[in-house]
Amino acid sequence: MKLQLALDLCTVEQASDILSQLHDLIDIAEIGTPMIMRDGVAAVTAIKEWQPNLTVLADLKIVDAGEHEAAIGFAAGADIVTVLGVADDATIRGAVASAKDHGGQVMADLISVADVAPRAGELVALGIDFVCVHTAYDRQASGADPLDDLRLAGGAIGRPKLAVAGGIDAAKAKQLVDQRPAIVVVGGAITGAADRRAAADEIKHALAEPQA
Amino acid sequence: MKLQLALDLCTVEQASDILSQLHDLIDIAEIGTPMIMRDGVAAVTAIKEWQPNLTVLADLKIVDAGEHEAAIGFAAGADIVTVLGVADDATIRGAVASAKDHGGQVMADLISVADVAPRAGELVALGIDFVCVHTAYDRQASGADPLDDLRLAGGAIGRPKLAVAGGIDAAKAKQLVDQRPAIVVVGGAITGAADRRAAADEIKHALAEPQA
Repeated sequence: MKLQLALDLCTVEQASDILSQLHDLIDIAEIGTPMIMRDGVAAVTAIKEWQPNLTVLADLKIVDAGEHEAAIGFAAGADIVTVLGVADDATIRGAVASAKDHGGQVMADLISVADVAPRAGELVALGIDFVCVHTAYDRQASGADPLDDLRLAGGAIGRPKLAVAGGIDAAKAKQLVDQRPAIVVVGGAITGAADRRAAADEIKHALAEPQA
Repeated sequence: MKLQLALDLCTVEQASDILSQLHDLIDIAEIGTPMIMRDGVAAVTAIKEWQPNLTVLADLKIVDAGEHEAAIGFAAGADIVTVLGVADDATIRGAVASAKDHGGQVMADLISVADVAPRAGELVALGIDFVCVHTAYDRQASGADPLDDLRLAGGAIGRPKLAVAGGIDAAKAKQLVDQRPAIVVVGGAITGAADRRAAADEIKHALAEPQA
């Protein structure tokens, strides 16, 4: 399982600072939606130029103009861009076409998708690289968690294209071992920790594949 | 009916240039999603500082972290921010709370909402100021248009909170006279015209309320 670190509530300088503490522990750096709203894709470019070997995901949450908006992310240096799973199939196809043009990848975010299993299957058939089961930040306070939907989506598409996000901490990470999604997205449980390396280490251990 | 000009595929400089040609003909300047992806909300601030009396909408298409992301738009100078109608009710409530704090307004975009009438009613009950029936750019090539959904949403919420977007040109504007939404969003039919003032004038005339 790869660890994707979501950088949401910080400036480019803070993101660089966090990444320099953690770059050997994480596989994908996510430039979160609030960062892109504040700084635009310049935030992606800044991180990519600073760490060219780090895989960078731009959480654009594209819902229209798929080809054009994905190209904005890829041109800025993103390796992966996100689209919303609720978007029209034409938008998904546009983002996938842009990824092919730029040698990038597309993750579809299932936020607000009512019935995740069939849509996950459709998204993979449309050429999406990763499908992310995502419990909205605004729903986490009510105790919602992504594990049931993860099981359903994983049943539809299998683990190599499966990702999960939304309130994942070390305790929740341990519960992911059955489904073993390809990508686990963690934000506040690492970025908000007093000791970020210790928090990331604990999650890495929780995610470690069982030894044969 | 108010005319909202969507500025999507341009730089801040091009947007200022277009607005200086048209500022007396339009009621709301929309900083479109692709502009925000490229430049962040600095684009909103630049336009608002240049024309403080112009109503500026930031097309953030918020789908999570409603209170925080709406605040990013309002703090940058937006008078109106957008949320997706598919977002969780908690996200809608967060954006509405942020609007109250900042003296701003929230428009909900019905893109990807399957059944527009009941959701439009719920969004208004949650405190949304305007509900926008929106035919995705990526669906316009297939001949989709927003008129049927506009009738359904208008039946649910009435015209003062109704907005419409997606491929509106002078011919389609004439067809809006029955529903008379409060806000009509036009993009390419004006920004892509050889003579933008003539195009905006023609649409303004098509939208003119019938004289008593």
